[in-house]
Formats: sequence, structure tokens, C-alpha cells
Amino acid sequence: MIDLTLIGIGTGHPDHLTLQGVRALQEADLVLIPMKGEDKEDLAGLRLEMLARHGAQAVQAVFDLPRRDVEDPDYLGAVERWHDAIAQAWAAQIARHLPGGGRVALLVWGDPMLYDSSLRIAARLDTRVRVIPGITAIQALCAAHAMPLNSLASPVVITTGRCLRDHGWPEAAERVVVMLDGACAFRDLPPAGLRIWWGAFLGLPQQILDHGPLAEAGPRIIAARAEARAGHGWIMDCYLLSREG
Amino acid sequence: MIDLTLIGIGTGHPDHLTLQGVRALQEADLVLIPMKGEDKEDLAGLRLEMLARHGAQAVQAVFDLPRRDVEDPDYLGAVERWHDAIAQAWAAQIARHLPGGGRVALLVWGDPMLYDSSLRIAARLDTRVRVIPGITAIQALCAAHAMPLNSLASPVVITTGRCLRDHGWPEAAERVVVMLDGACAFRDLPPAGLRIWWGAFLGLPQQILDHGPLAEAGPRIIAARAEARAGHGWIMDCYLLSREG
Repeated sequence: MIDLTLIGIGTGHPDHLTLQGVRALQEADLVLIPMKGEDKEDLAGLRLEMLARHGAQAVQAVFDLPRRDVEDPDYLGAVERWHDAIAQAWAAQIARHLPGGGRVALLVWGDPMLYDSSLRIAARLDTRVRVIPGITAIQALCAAHAMPLNSLASPVVITTGRCLRDHGWPEAAERVVVMLDGACAFRDLPPAGLRIWWGAFLGLPQQILDHGPLAEAGPRIIAARAEARAGHGWIMDCYLLSREG
Repeated sequence: MIDLTLIGIGTGHPDHLTLQGVRALQEADLVLIPMKGEDKEDLAGLRLEMLARHGAQAVQAVFDLPRRDVEDPDYLGAVERWHDAIAQAWAAQIARHLPGGGRVALLVWGDPMLYDSSLRIAARLDTRVRVIPGITAIQALCAAHAMPLNSLASPVVITTGRCLRDHGWPEAAERVVVMLDGACAFRDLPPAGLRIWWGAFLGLPQQILDHGPLAEAGPRIIAARAEARAGHGWIMDCYLLSREG
């Protein structure tokens, strides 16, 4: 029997890892280390550092992740087929390294519950699945700004750049967190009365923060984001918008 | 100068603490330990256990928290005055134990960013404030159910029991997380097409979980919640609702 543990490892700070995560790494017989072709060097190094610190006695299975067919016009179908292929790649590594069963760990950036496919992929395998929660980018953003996510007893919407662009400001929300936004969707919002708290590379040494009224901070963030992306070759960022008074 | 670190400690599992949290406890000169009159014995014990494990060399300032005036008809004003009084209580402990300045830590259940007042209280003091994020009940809930928070690339609304009761299902949301709900506000929703994932005492040994179609699981949860609350003398719970097909 295979026990698969999805370990949320936070957003880039090695000490985002929880004691639960440390223990799961220590107890693993096998750690799956899928490499994306575009794997960011900064992040790959961090993952290996965590393994060296906490999971050194596990077998480490390094393998290439299948690529999604980005030409396929059937987007959702292509994602389904891609997840099937990833599940097969996991299963092949597990069969090879743990033919008698055992404990498998997979490191997941952030928390496996939030905008991550590992749970959906794991559901394709005949394994017990356990989740260790980890610090999300939303939490790293709020912590970096020493900022509450919600205003007093009020709701918060978590959404994506595409949803914000397509549907505008979610009605009834005072605060909105935007993730997976490669195109600064905030630029299409009427900025009056809105404030933004933005962060990139959250938890990493190259972390960048900005905040202020959207009308002033928005253009600064667009410029800083483009410059940082060009300098590092990649960027991960998210932001919180508020329309309170 | 005073450095105040708000340490998110998760929802009740001692190993929810991150390595960042461990380090902040180890580096603290003073740990503030406010006692609420109604402090749950299970939770108070856990906090002390964490301090014994990780922050044993800090001075521990145990003190009673001021109470909020629940008779005050001006709810928001009463909350403001209550937070003023808590800030004064913190300041008095800090002045007494660290007259020359130093590093102060405060343990916060969950994460200080989410439905917690510590950041608003800390803003009343003349201190540098640092936040260490911690595992929230939302994450503990999703992890316990091995369940993603969002459906594929879709938004999520985080709200309170009162907001759900007063405003109903938030339009445009497929998934809603409900916190701070002492009255099972889901009972007022038309249950057709809704599923619920519920958890109480998340992370603690007495954790209870249930899930299913709201029409079937809702009444079970109402009964289990009442029984558990009577048995333990308190309860903390939250739930995720989904209206996908």
C-alpha cells in the first residue's frame, strides 16, 4: 500500500515549513521531485535545500514532468489529459522505487488546497492521500505588509487575474485577493477609492513590496513587475485590493 | 525600542507551528500570555506546551485580558474601546518586564491576518510589528478532508456566519468558506445542489469531520455540533460549501 503525503512548503522561505511538514519529510521513504522544464533555479535550489535539511534519508526520485499541450484548443480537456499523464509519471516512479509500498512525499509550493492540482492528480492514483497544510502566498503577502486580510468581520474574495479582468470587481466584496495574474488585471479597474497591497517573490530574499492608493501605486507596480521579471527571468506575485474608505 | 512579533500558531495541532514561528519564540525576550476568562482548557494547555518546547528562556507574562462590554449598544464603539484597553494591558506588561526594550512575542491562533484583532491592537502601540503567518482553520479543514479550497481556476469567498445569514449565498461564487458561525447559518440556505465539508476542533485530538450533500449532512452536523459543544463546553468549527454540479 502507498501513502502519499502532499506537503505544503510555503512560498519560498525555507522556514515557512511547519513542524508537521518536517516530520512528514523525515518519515518519507521516497520523495517525488518532478522537474518542470521552466523550473526556476531559485525555487529548485530551495526545494533541494529543504530535502537536505529534513528528508535526507528518503530516496529522491527526480524526473521530468510531462508538458501540457498548449496548442490544444480544448483547454479543459488538455488539462485533464495533462493531469492523467502526470499521475502516470508519479505512478511509474513509485512502482520503480517502492515496489513493496511505503510512504511517498511530494513538496507543494504554498498549500495543496489553493490553486494547485496535486490533489486532483493524486485522486487518479490508488493511494491513501494525506495533506500537510503550508503557508500560502496570501498569508506571506499579508504578513509582509503586517496587514489583516479581512476588514472587521467582513468577507474576502480570493480570485484570479482572469476572473477579475472578465468579471470586474466582485459585488459585495470590500477586499479582494488576486492570484495567478500575469497581466496586472488591476489596471482595468476604475482606481477611485481602491487601495492595493502587492508583493512579488514573497518569502524569498528578492521579495519586493509596494502599497498605496491604486491610482498611484498601480503604475509603479506595473513598472516594478516588468523590471523584476526581466531581471530574474520569472516572477510570482499576488495582491490585495480594498475599497474601504 | 520594542519589536512585537505576532506568531500564527495554527489551529490546535502543536506541529502546525512553522520553523519561522519556532525561531521567533526562541528569540523572544518576553512572551505575552493573555488569559481570557473563558480560555478553553484544551487550548490553554497547548499554548503552554508550545512555550515549554520552544520558548522556555523567555519571560512569560501571564495576565487577564480586559473584557468587552457586551451590554454596550454601540457594538463597533465597544469593540474599539475594548481594543484600546487590550493595547494598554499589553503596554503595561511590556513596560514592566522589558523597561529597556527588547523582543516581545504573542501567540495567535490560526494566522494573525484572518479574523483576528491582534494587528489592529498592535497598531495602537509604538512598536515595530512583525507577523509570522500560521496555518488557518480553512487550511486545516481542507487538509483534513484532502479537499481543494477552489474549483479549477475559480474564485472563493471567505465569509462569516452572520454575513451568510444576512446576505445569503454570495453571487458569482461556486465555493464559500464560512467562519465565526455559532448558529449553523447553512441551515437557512436552500440545500439543493449544495455540498458541505465541515470540521470542528481542527487539528486537535477531538477533531470531528463530516461532509456530503447539504440536505443530508446539514442535519447531521447540527446534531453533532450541539452534542460536541455540550460535551466539551466549547466548540470551534468552520465549513466549506460548494454549489458545483
